[in-house]
Amino acid sequence: MNSNAVIAIHGGAGTILRASMSASAEADYHAALNAVLSAGQRVLADGGSALDAVSEAVRLLEDCPLFNAGHGAVYTAAGTHELDAAIMDGRTLDAGAICCVKRVRNPILAARRVLEHSDHVLFTGDGAEAFAAAQGLEFVDNSYFDTDARYRQWQLAREQQRPMLDHDGASLAAAAAAQRNAEPTPHEPIDPNRKFGTVGAVALDRHGHLAAATSTGGVTNKQVGRVGDTPLIGAGCYADDATCAVSTTGSGEMFIRMVAAYDVAAQMTYRQLSLEDAAHDVVMNRLPKIDGRGGLVAVDAQGNVTLPFNTEGMYRGFARLGGAPVTSIYR
Amino acid sequence: MNSNAVIAIHGGAGTILRASMSASAEADYHAALNAVLSAGQRVLADGGSALDAVSEAVRLLEDCPLFNAGHGAVYTAAGTHELDAAIMDGRTLDAGAICCVKRVRNPILAARRVLEHSDHVLFTGDGAEAFAAAQGLEFVDNSYFDTDARYRQWQLAREQQRPMLDHDGASLAAAAAAQRNAEPTPHEPIDPNRKFGTVGAVALDRHGHLAAATSTGGVTNKQVGRVGDTPLIGAGCYADDATCAVSTTGSGEMFIRMVAAYDVAAQMTYRQLSLEDAAHDVVMNRLPKIDGRGGLVAVDAQGNVTLPFNTEGMYRGFARLGGAPVTSIYR
Repeated sequence: MNSNAVIAIHGGAGTILRASMSASAEADYHAALNAVLSAGQRVLADGGSALDAVSEAVRLLEDCPLFNAGHGAVYTAAGTHELDAAIMDGRTLDAGAICCVKRVRNPILAARRVLEHSDHVLFTGDGAEAFAAAQGLEFVDNSYFDTDARYRQWQLAREQQRPMLDHDGASLAAAAAAQRNAEPTPHEPIDPNRKFGTVGAVALDRHGHLAAATSTGGVTNKQVGRVGDTPLIGAGCYADDATCAVSTTGSGEMFIRMVAAYDVAAQMTYRQLSLEDAAHDVVMNRLPKIDGRGGLVAVDAQGNVTLPFNTEGMYRGFARLGGAPVTSIYR
Repeated sequence: MNSNAVIAIHGGAGTILRASMSASAEADYHAALNAVLSAGQRVLADGGSALDAVSEAVRLLEDCPLFNAGHGAVYTAAGTHELDAAIMDGRTLDAGAICCVKRVRNPILAARRVLEHSDHVLFTGDGAEAFAAAQGLEFVDNSYFDTDARYRQWQLAREQQRPMLDHDGASLAAAAAAQRNAEPTPHEPIDPNRKFGTVGAVALDRHGHLAAATSTGGVTNKQVGRVGDTPLIGAGCYADDATCAVSTTGSGEMFIRMVAAYDVAAQMTYRQLSLEDAAHDVVMNRLPKIDGRGGLVAVDAQGNVTLPFNTEGMYRGFARLGGAPVTSIYR
């Protein structure tokens, strides 16, 4: 049995909203991250697989309205929600993902079913929903994903005619300028209008296997049909027992173009870098070359954990067997 | 000016159908590949960009009914066509892709528009079509993609209750057994029932820049909504002036799990392998570990070209400035 079993999670990265920062808002986020880590820890302590631990952690993050995935997902330009998720098993390199689903309560569970019950890796749209329905997963009306906080963000984005982009430099600057004139959005330590909202988890289990999972509602006011890095194996999610498990959050398009999650594994294999050095290079050197902003959580087969980000903050944490969860928001 | 400008293309890989091989069928494929290469060559000779050359080559491959992309695309389980395409510019790492479109005549042109006129990389389904419509691209009825040959393949797959899989070992064996009892499919040197149908192109232009493009109808009798490696940057398509341009064809799910296209670039960067050695390792060593079958075409910034495949055949060819196109089907 591997005594280094560990789980790490993230809930998005971005710019710290100092204006409206409040102790109670911070405490809410720490409590939510702690609860999710504790649940993942229990799965691992009971001898459960890394795959089970990351599925459960991401399911809970989807159900929590504080994070942009599942209930609490952002709004598209059409005022709807379109959800993406992916999961990968480092033991076998099996993977499953879905994108652009509108009525599956927990997208990560649909991705898990694709991994386990399909010869395919990725399903999109109506076909993804048909697959999830045939698998007996819980369906909800699209309005189930509504929350007041995300609705206000969407209204703000529309008023500013922001093309949904939190993610390039120009849009960030425009959003920042607009933000200074706008009502501060209360109760979120990381500015929801300049946040890359994704949730994810990586784990090493007691049997020595790795897994990664990622889920998102995308970016506020996104064009219908836009797919980011989250459901793309290699970009938003990757796991291989031989190297590491990685889940990313950030400006999705740049993570796709840099094949960010897989690049951590590639640098470990081909450059013999440590997990920390490989992840640092991707987040601090490679992604910034194309203005890629965000971060990732990663774990290797020895139980090393790293949680680098190049933004002001990232909701994150990790928990080892028998230890208290450690959660953080700022640097 | 770079005098090593070159274009390479593929039209799918698979098992050679010796039973029905005919000299005239072979000649048809060589002629089609030659015509596409000549068109790409003209773009490069005129000083056009690698991006223009691969766009034009893949557009022509989509329009040619011999290949599984655009007109001539395979049928889904619902008797429809769902098309995917991706393109990447090695000069900037900009990328564009669309998946699961049903009415865009040339999916590669939609991917090109995403690259050039959107901050996003990937659009799916109705959202992808809305984007293409807003860009003024040509739309057709889904039946435009119909061909008698692909319809017969679909009927055969349905009769055999094949779950659409050409791509795993068991399904290949089952298909092979069924094939022996079935009517030989005439006029295609590579067995269309055991072929990984994709088209793609890579190029180095006279300015020293690289680009890659890939397009497909997917696999016969595929479940609605299934997306393979073709539209996924890093899996089916990758280009970076610093390393290489790659377009793949094969059992898409395995190419996704191995991040096949990007892995060629990663091995060149991180292991300092040559283009040929890196591509060989991906196709001959890494993909077979998970029963990945198929091949790729790749070019580097020095004008080296490699076209490895681990199946019996791959429709392929390349053309250098001022030289006659070279086309091949078998080993």
